[in-house]
Amino acid sequence: MGLLKNLEGAVKGASVPFDALLDNLPYNDQGLIAAIAQDATSHQVLMLAWMDRTAIERTINEGQVWYFSRSRNTYWRKGESSGHTQQLISMAFDCDGDAVLLEVKQTGPACHTNRHHCFYLQVQGQQVVVNASPEEG
Amino acid sequence: MGLLKNLEGAVKGASVPFDALLDNLPYNDQGLIAAIAQDATSHQVLMLAWMDRTAIERTINEGQVWYFSRSRNTYWRKGESSGHTQQLISMAFDCDGDAVLLEVKQTGPACHTNRHHCFYLQVQGQQVVVNASPEEG
Repeated sequence: MGLLKNLEGAVKGASVPFDALLDNLPYNDQGLIAAIAQDATSHQVLMLAWMDRTAIERTINEGQVWYFSRSRNTYWRKGESSGHTQQLISMAFDCDGDAVLLEVKQTGPACHTNRHHCFYLQVQGQQVVVNASPEEG
Repeated sequence: MGLLKNLEGAVKGASVPFDALLDNLPYNDQGLIAAIAQDATSHQVLMLAWMDRTAIERTINEGQVWYFSRSRNTYWRKGESSGHTQQLISMAFDCDGDAVLLEVKQTGPACHTNRHHCFYLQVQGQQVVVNASPEEG
């Protein structure tokens, strides 16, 4: 965490090698950090998933978003079966390095339920209301 | 997970009691889910932190965001020491219930480094570049 701690006081424009950052991320027990995908155009938060170092590197190298699936214990290129891919527009890590924000160009629905976004369970008073129907198709 | 699974196919406007949702969230080993705070006006993603059921309930009841600090093992009302509070505008859970999106009205910087947001470590080619300086104050 030395590298991240040192960057806390850094001014705009300071930089470190990407590899050095990857060496210093506080991956959890499963080797993962949280990954937030945000639509680069609408700025809607689409989903939260998980990445390990390999998924991060593949995403940067290919320009298409890869995650690590905890339930299936495998890498997963977003949209590889559905066609609902995420093209990477930008990637930024947070202050303590346990989360990464992906700005993406989303093709089709981001959610496996066929909704544009995953955050469709909206709290309204004492109820939780579904705020979007699954898309047709 | 039955309740969440049942909601996957639900159309817009369907609802369940909030308590029932809280009973059915897949809290991790530490009893937590991931919480994303997004500026309700600018739509900038400000930070990622963690909430347990109590933090979620306090946030709804008080209209001010509470998190659970893993490093300090305690509840933490955002801004309680810094004054940089988050007023809750809306709260929505994702399809599998392991993440919650908080739209907030942020007072002052959201990041403990005194930046407006935590995601200031931007990947640019083989470098990671600091995209914001700490604010004065």
